Amino acid sequence: MTNDSDMTKRTIKELSEYGSYGDLYLSHKGGEPLPSGIVLKEIVTLVRAIIFPGYFGDPMVNKNTIQYHIGVNIDNLQTLLTEQILAGICYSKRNCEICQDNNENRHKAKEIATKFIAYLPELRRLLGTDVEAAYNGDPAAESYEEIIFCYPAIRAISNYRMAHKLQELGVPLIPRMITEMAHSETGIDIHPGAVIGEYFTIDHGTGVVIGQTAIIGKNVKLYQGVTLGAKSFPLDEDGKPIKGIPRHPILEDNVIIYSNATILGRITIGEGASIGGNIWVTKNVPKGAKVIQNRTKEVSVITDDK
Amino acid sequence: MTNDSDMTKRTIKELSEYGSYGDLYLSHKGGEPLPSGIVLKEIVTLVRAIIFPGYFGDPMVNKNTIQYHIGVNIDNLQTLLTEQILAGICYSKRNCEICQDNNENRHKAKEIATKFIAYLPELRRLLGTDVEAAYNGDPAAESYEEIIFCYPAIRAISNYRMAHKLQELGVPLIPRMITEMAHSETGIDIHPGAVIGEYFTIDHGTGVVIGQTAIIGKNVKLYQGVTLGAKSFPLDEDGKPIKGIPRHPILEDNVIIYSNATILGRITIGEGASIGGNIWVTKNVPKGAKVIQNRTKEVSVITDDK
Amino acid sequence: MTNDSDMTKRTIKELSEYGSYGDLYLSHKGGEPLPSGIVLKEIVTLVRAIIFPGYFGDPMVNKNTIQYHIGVNIDNLQTLLTEQILAGICYSKRNCEICQDNNENRHKAKEIATKFIAYLPELRRLLGTDVEAAYNGDPAAESYEEIIFCYPAIRAISNYRMAHKLQELGVPLIPRMITEMAHSETGIDIHPGAVIGEYFTIDHGTGVVIGQTAIIGKNVKLYQGVTLGAKSFPLDEDGKPIKGIPRHPILEDNVIIYSNATILGRITIGEGASIGGNIWVTKNVPKGAKVIQNRTKEVSVITDDK
Amino acid sequence: MTNDSDMTKRTIKELSEYGSYGDLYLSHKGGEPLPSGIVLKEIVTLVRAIIFPGYFGDPMVNKNTIQYHIGVNIDNLQTLLTEQILAGICYSKRNCEICQDNNENRHKAKEIATKFIAYLPELRRLLGTDVEAAYNGDPAAESYEEIIFCYPAIRAISNYRMAHKLQELGVPLIPRMITEMAHSETGIDIHPGAVIGEYFTIDHGTGVVIGQTAIIGKNVKLYQGVTLGAKSFPLDEDGKPIKGIPRHPILEDNVIIYSNATILGRITIGEGASIGGNIWVTKNVPKGAKVIQNRTKEVSVITDDK
Amino acid sequence: MTNDSDMTKRTIKELSEYGSYGDLYLSHKGGEPLPSGIVLKEIVTLVRAIIFPGYFGDPMVNKNTIQYHIGVNIDNLQTLLTEQILAGICYSKRNCEICQDNNENRHKAKEIATKFIAYLPELRRLLGTDVEAAYNGDPAAESYEEIIFCYPAIRAISNYRMAHKLQELGVPLIPRMITEMAHSETGIDIHPGAVIGEYFTIDHGTGVVIGQTAIIGKNVKLYQGVTLGAKSFPLDEDGKPIKGIPRHPILEDNVIIYSNATILGRITIGEGASIGGNIWVTKNVPKGAKVIQNRTKEVSVITDDK
Amino acid sequence: MTNDSDMTKRTIKELSEYGSYGDLYLSHKGGEPLPSGIVLKEIVTLVRAIIFPGYFGDPMVNKNTIQYHIGVNIDNLQTLLTEQILAGICYSKRNCEICQDNNENRHKAKEIATKFIAYLPELRRLLGTDVEAAYNGDPAAESYEEIIFCYPAIRAISNYRMAHKLQELGVPLIPRMITEMAHSETGIDIHPGAVIGEYFTIDHGTGVVIGQTAIIGKNVKLYQGVTLGAKSFPLDEDGKPIKGIPRHPILEDNVIIYSNATILGRITIGEGASIGGNIWVTKNVPKGAKVIQNRTKEVSVITDDK
Repeated sequence: MTNDSDMTKRTIKELSEYGSYGDLYLSHKGGEPLPSGIVLKEIVTLVRAIIFPGYFGDPMVNKNTIQYHIGVNIDNLQTLLTEQILAGICYSKRNCEICQDNNENRHKAKEIATKFIAYLPELRRLLGTDVEAAYNGDPAAESYEEIIFCYPAIRAISNYRMAHKLQELGVPLIPRMITEMAHSETGIDIHPGAVIGEYFTIDHGTGVVIGQTAIIGKNVKLYQGVTLGAKSFPLDEDGKPIKGIPRHPILEDNVIIYSNATILGRITIGEGASIGGNIWVTKNVPKGAKVIQNRTKEVSVITDDK
Repeated sequence: MTNDSDMTKRTIKELSEYGSYGDLYLSHKGGEPLPSGIVLKEIVTLVRAIIFPGYFGDPMVNKNTIQYHIGVNIDNLQTLLTEQILAGICYSKRNCEICQDNNENRHKAKEIATKFIAYLPELRRLLGTDVEAAYNGDPAAESYEEIIFCYPAIRAISNYRMAHKLQELGVPLIPRMITEMAHSETGIDIHPGAVIGEYFTIDHGTGVVIGQTAIIGKNVKLYQGVTLGAKSFPLDEDGKPIKGIPRHPILEDNVIIYSNATILGRITIGEGASIGGNIWVTKNVPKGAKVIQNRTKEVSVITDDK
Repeated sequence: MTNDSDMTKRTIKELSEYGSYGDLYLSHKGGEPLPSGIVLKEIVTLVRAIIFPGYFGDPMVNKNTIQYHIGVNIDNLQTLLTEQILAGICYSKRNCEICQDNNENRHKAKEIATKFIAYLPELRRLLGTDVEAAYNGDPAAESYEEIIFCYPAIRAISNYRMAHKLQELGVPLIPRMITEMAHSETGIDIHPGAVIGEYFTIDHGTGVVIGQTAIIGKNVKLYQGVTLGAKSFPLDEDGKPIKGIPRHPILEDNVIIYSNATILGRITIGEGASIGGNIWVTKNVPKGAKVIQNRTKEVSVITDDK
Repeated sequence: MTNDSDMTKRTIKELSEYGSYGDLYLSHKGGEPLPSGIVLKEIVTLVRAIIFPGYFGDPMVNKNTIQYHIGVNIDNLQTLLTEQILAGICYSKRNCEICQDNNENRHKAKEIATKFIAYLPELRRLLGTDVEAAYNGDPAAESYEEIIFCYPAIRAISNYRMAHKLQELGVPLIPRMITEMAHSETGIDIHPGAVIGEYFTIDHGTGVVIGQTAIIGKNVKLYQGVTLGAKSFPLDEDGKPIKGIPRHPILEDNVIIYSNATILGRITIGEGASIGGNIWVTKNVPKGAKVIQNRTKEVSVITDDK
Repeated sequence: MTNDSDMTKRTIKELSEYGSYGDLYLSHKGGEPLPSGIVLKEIVTLVRAIIFPGYFGDPMVNKNTIQYHIGVNIDNLQTLLTEQILAGICYSKRNCEICQDNNENRHKAKEIATKFIAYLPELRRLLGTDVEAAYNGDPAAESYEEIIFCYPAIRAISNYRMAHKLQELGVPLIPRMITEMAHSETGIDIHPGAVIGEYFTIDHGTGVVIGQTAIIGKNVKLYQGVTLGAKSFPLDEDGKPIKGIPRHPILEDNVIIYSNATILGRITIGEGASIGGNIWVTKNVPKGAKVIQNRTKEVSVITDDK
Repeated sequence: MTNDSDMTKRTIKELSEYGSYGDLYLSHKGGEPLPSGIVLKEIVTLVRAIIFPGYFGDPMVNKNTIQYHIGVNIDNLQTLLTEQILAGICYSKRNCEICQDNNENRHKAKEIATKFIAYLPELRRLLGTDVEAAYNGDPAAESYEEIIFCYPAIRAISNYRMAHKLQELGVPLIPRMITEMAHSETGIDIHPGAVIGEYFTIDHGTGVVIGQTAIIGKNVKLYQGVTLGAKSFPLDEDGKPIKGIPRHPILEDNVIIYSNATILGRITIGEGASIGGNIWVTKNVPKGAKVIQNRTKEVSVITDDK
């Protein structure tokens, strides 16, 4: 046992040396914590409770008490969100010494949280259009309640719309953490940088990928497995990808993309166009076009009696 | 800070007004809660513990004590399930004033819970066939234990089979909540309305979609990413989809569908047929047929030295 | 109610009989528990905290205190891992009477845990290469922090690399449980038996499947929905699949596979080759080749004005 | 082991027979639960948060948000208290078949909860006088904050005042449960039936007992270990104690009782009287009297050099 | 900050040296844990649920299901108790190398747990007599339910009776841990070594102390603050107290001791005797005697007008 | 129901008005939280784990790993204690605007936490003497382990010694919160301001009170129910008690006070003196004296045959 114990001591020593952890260690200059996944989950839950009262949060809320519940939820949201935004700001300024006790940073965090809260009525309106679109687009949907309560698309789009607003307000890291939570729960991966119009819906959803610079119009519907991706990306002189170049598709209003289709590159799918399932599109598609596979040429059916 | 605080107060007021929340608010007429996702998780866990003793629930169960453990689990299941079914019934009758204290509703909920419990031996038998099918269909499977313990397909099919029975018994909303739990955990999305025979298995599973009116025979195997979907759906006079029309495929016994294939519409895949991966099928496939891609025509290989 | 209650009693009795549970019951010969999913989650969390200090585990760790934190984490890891490995060993010897109090088994479990701990510096080095590959391969990645904190690929590859080592050390069942945890969280399904080189990355990831006997070189990149699967598998005389035969692809160094491509069978994708999205490959691909779809032949665009 | 297992089976059987559990089993006629200690703790915590905002409950409450927090706390209190009162009512009517679904009982429970809530402003006023009395009576008290936050007397008196009101409103069982919680936490045992005026305080408190029919005026102070008990109690024809007869002391305004004094029987301690420590009193004490021990007669001091 | 950090490092070093912790460190020879306070709480809760079905444990138990609940509770009790007894045995043999994997120790632990379980029907009978005594002795008691649910005496006596049996069965350390739990909750300190007959009750209870070698007959009642203590104890040659000598009182049947009385030394309080409150007794008291204070001689009443 | 709902709205409004809550509301000027009882419990647990390794905290600590565990515990203690001390400092400066982000306050809090940590070796030494005194003073004590693990006195004295040091270091509020935790758990109420020498022990303990200005020498032993209190306290011109005047007893070395004795006022109990049980002492007691009750004069024994 002595040998084991010595070996373990050596391993501890090795793992504790800078040479071993290097870039894989997160150095908190001022001893300040990173944004917390657990608190961000609470934040998302609070926003959901505010947007959809009676569905999430206290189920017993009624018209007499709704103002109290929304008041408390917003008060808690303000507190938690300010702390997390501050942690995000400080993370992005890793070279500063004492960040979270810096009044300027704290003031900025509070201001952003307040702006986000002021955006909540518009967020509710937008998500309302998404619920309506899901209901109208799915014959299996029996009620708004079923959609709000069960549909992964609503969960993923809610997280995306929150994250997108926070990104617009200049918050680092947190938007991506929020969309990745939804990705883990639903298999739908929407980058917070994407721009998505109202009445947006995704059916089933697993495997959907919407890239950072994608632009989606109003009343667009995607099915499971759809990728709105980049075709390629330019490298800089060091062979590293150049960040921030538009490289994902633009979908105009009323577009439908069927399951497992892959749309790649900064192309435009024109208004009202539809793309059939399992199709690979890398060129512009005109307004109103229907892109489908030429099935007959492609598939062989070998019958048993052959 | 005063301005911030005033702005926040206005936001609270705005979010608390009917005009803002409208349809996004769940009004509980009698002040009664909706079915609870947390309790449904407990219910699923109890059923799993009853079906697979020693795997889930108390790990120390043995032949001397199994009757006590199953007795307690069923007693708890009866209590929790009755409450949830009652909540489901009351949710579906949103216009009634006092639902959960209504003896008729409570009696009906209890009756359904009892019928579900009486179904458990058959549920165990069915899931036993699914475990056997998974073992026989996967060379990587080392034991029944590995399959019951680890395989996402067994988790998704267990939830589906519970949910399907509850739907048959006329329970609203809850069946969909149960299958969506499995969807979130496994990426396998089976609608509780689908009808699926014994010895059913899914390999890997992420991205599988089985629609509401799909009918699947015995001994069928699907791979990851397979969609059994609707090709299109008729709209009513208002442009809304007509609910409840059969629109998903029928798979007869002994069918295999390989990964990422898409089968759309109320078509029939005949007994023993197999559909190759990444294929898009919208027409009937005869008994025993093998549908494969004509690869040579479709792919270009550009070698380096070109 | 008497009838209900009698019916329920009969159901309990039926479910408690051997004929009903048969193979679906896990008999613990010595009254010893199976490996525990909850404890394995703690173990994975501890390993993550050791590998990426400051990201996971105690966020306040700094250079003065890192040795204490790593020491305690490794001490706890040793204890928990030894117990779980012991449970795994005893599970695999279901015919023995008292396994966990058997000194030989306990000694072996401890030895394996110690070897796993000695492997942690190398595990850190390998995961460091994976983080670097993710950063260099994704223009949307803003920092190492974002990748370590948010990217599902890092989570899935971390679990895979732990699980693979434990499998190499001869631990039963646990490796598969660890990779299935990541599968559930990320939609990425990597079998612990696969062999994967350094600088490995997966973009987005949902739907990726890497089979048991796949071999992947250095600096390989996969996109979402890629399958490295088996084409078919030989059956034994009883019609059961023969276990353990190499049946998944070999990917040499610097290969890229784009989204939703399916590579099947024990074929080799040569060094530096790239496979386009949605492609189905069942034959060897030479070094440096680019495999793409012949799009023009395959797709019809029906414009609106038709 | 077989013998052990048989013996245990026999014990289970024996313990499951009516002859064994008889009166020690609580039969819930309608399958309805008893009041829950855990929920009563939540209720006490909610009341504390309402009475002392900023001390208990959400610490961040401020003047802008206090109305929302109080609104939500009262909404939750209404819900939880109604359920517990209903459980208490049904417990007290053990011969009825379906109690909790009985509209009359439910209506009564709701009415009592509403009355209790209407009493909260007066409860706050009363507890405010108790805090003031504690501050003025203890040179070690540094601030109101210390008293509200730390003093066991405030905790015990808070629980007593809640419980007393609930008893007045006719709620069974629950009042005693609430005072026993405080008894366990503080060692102060106040029966909910006692009547206690404003500006009441207890110093240190451990061992204080205040009996069911005690009556205490305004501005009374007790020290640790004081008993206000019954001297004896009449028995009925069966030798059982007759319930409900006044048998505990009356303390008029401004009385002080020092530590470990015992006051027994339905006697009156007159206004402004004080009773010295460790004294045993069973007769009326006139207004303004000081009762002290004749120490010189009673104690021997044996010095060392004897 | 460097100085602080250095100082802290020195403190860590100092606290980690044997010279500093010496006897205050519990060395687990075989790396085996001590009995766990948390698990003992679970054990006490299980026993309470078995003894008083419907009060503790699952509140919904009924005559149809009681056997399942008792079966599961006893199964869990067997498992948990065996582990804790084993930990207790190993703690008492601190010089052995591998205790808990020693079959002899494990076998002995299991045997004791089985004997304790076989004692449960008698334990239930005894506690039934205590409940009856509490009801008959307290005019404030409204029902058996109130006593079982709320009375600290029942909690303290339950823990004592469990602990006493375990001590009789030779279990080290654990009996004392169980009675100290009750001491903390109720202020009643009964040593597990005391011998106490049936129909025992304690009113209010805070401050009661019953010493290790006390012997209490049937139908005895104590009030709060009563001490049954040692008068003095002989020292050995090294000036250390000699352990195990009878030094606490014997109370014969039907004795009553009123509040805060102190009975010291191995004296006998004869059958049916009663001892008044606040009295100090160090000599035998004959059968049927009433010991009271001579109040008139002892107290001065100074009236206000003096 | 409308009336109820209106009444409740009015109550909410009333409870939310300043006139109602006044002094009972804790106003956090800078929106900063008070010290937290929950975190203080963690802190006490950490200190216990550092002082008594193997008893509290990780039970598996051994000589190879103790330094890591103590390092991590101290690192966590530093973080948590600094935050709580800062909250205490800010609470005591209720008129400042932004306290917790004030660098001076934060720096002071850190400095105090560091000093407290530097005191831990001495705290361990002192508590070691207390454990030894308990062992030597109690014939029922079977081992050091039993004392450290079970004895309420050790728990109460540990909390007192921590709290006393924090008070010496000038921390507001927190010391009292820590001693009141122990008071609630053990019934032993030691004010953090008292001064207590080494080798201190309390037997049983319930009801012990040690006042703010008491001074206790070395090797002193108290029994349950002992009060070291104030006889009276001077009032200022407004009739409020003057704070901070010495008013509690001085006990010199080697004093023993038996159960329920009450020692009042700034008197001195001389070296080696002993005070009998239930005695009331308000005058100095000379060195070595034994103070006992004159029992014969005081008690009447009425025998049955009278």
